[in-house]
Amino acid sequence: MADRECPLSRTLDAVGEWWTLLLLHDCFDGFTRFDQFEANLGISSGMLTKRLKTLVDNGILERRQYSERPPRFEYVLTDTGRSLRPVIVALAAWGNAQLPRRERSMILVDARTGREVEPVVVDRRTGKPLDDPDAYVFAAGPAASEAFRTRYDALAAKRKAAR
Amino acid sequence: MADRECPLSRTLDAVGEWWTLLLLHDCFDGFTRFDQFEANLGISSGMLTKRLKTLVDNGILERRQYSERPPRFEYVLTDTGRSLRPVIVALAAWGNAQLPRRERSMILVDARTGREVEPVVVDRRTGKPLDDPDAYVFAAGPAASEAFRTRYDALAAKRKAAR
Repeated sequence: MADRECPLSRTLDAVGEWWTLLLLHDCFDGFTRFDQFEANLGISSGMLTKRLKTLVDNGILERRQYSERPPRFEYVLTDTGRSLRPVIVALAAWGNAQLPRRERSMILVDARTGREVEPVVVDRRTGKPLDDPDAYVFAAGPAASEAFRTRYDALAAKRKAAR
Repeated sequence: MADRECPLSRTLDAVGEWWTLLLLHDCFDGFTRFDQFEANLGISSGMLTKRLKTLVDNGILERRQYSERPPRFEYVLTDTGRSLRPVIVALAAWGNAQLPRRERSMILVDARTGREVEPVVVDRRTGKPLDDPDAYVFAAGPAASEAFRTRYDALAAKRKAAR
């Protein structure tokens, strides 16, 4: 399996490290400054610098000067960065689903009403939930390598035989 | 920010390492055996053993004997493990969204028709997409600590002021 062609690997590479998702969570909550991230996340400034750099290099955050004297910078989500939000939402939803409602510490709500929402992944066109692994499956795409095509042809044949 | 109470951290802890998502992808594609994972993922058997153990310990995979002589085991997703599928789908969808359609190597399709689907995260009740970070926000839940409640109260006040 060529990792470079797997879209999962591509996401993992862009985010850098697992832990970086907690930094992105801060960004989605509206924090933008180094000292805020440092206080919220409790990591060393060296580590934070490195992780911010990865996100800037990968086009997920933009480093923007907001003060000339003294020179000060903030980190703002790019459009590409903002498009990572469903990933954060899906991860948090899974964490919460492991707990009864009264034991949840952080929930996703409608900003106007405060009502808790329940995230579910659906097909944009049909609105049908995609969580049934028998109904919606990964398959080789137009740019699939020979290895990928072989893998998914074999899986499709297996599924067909099982029907 | 107390990491233990954040549902994102909970998911990250349960999965173990970032990389483990590629192993879960194999599980969702229907692979169950050690030698299959090893061949697909190209990692050392020591590393694979360790990662499978984490997933079994966290209730995501079940280790099941499928042959008595010789004794052979397979690894099968539990219900908890299967509920991680939206996470995998959201990660892969982001990776693919970075590419024009013809450059995609692995796509999610309707198993019956082969049509590519476009995953989007919505609220189960209203069907509305949750990707607008101004309309749907994280908030303190019933079990939030003082620190979490302070964080989210401040953010809510800031949003209210900005309206």
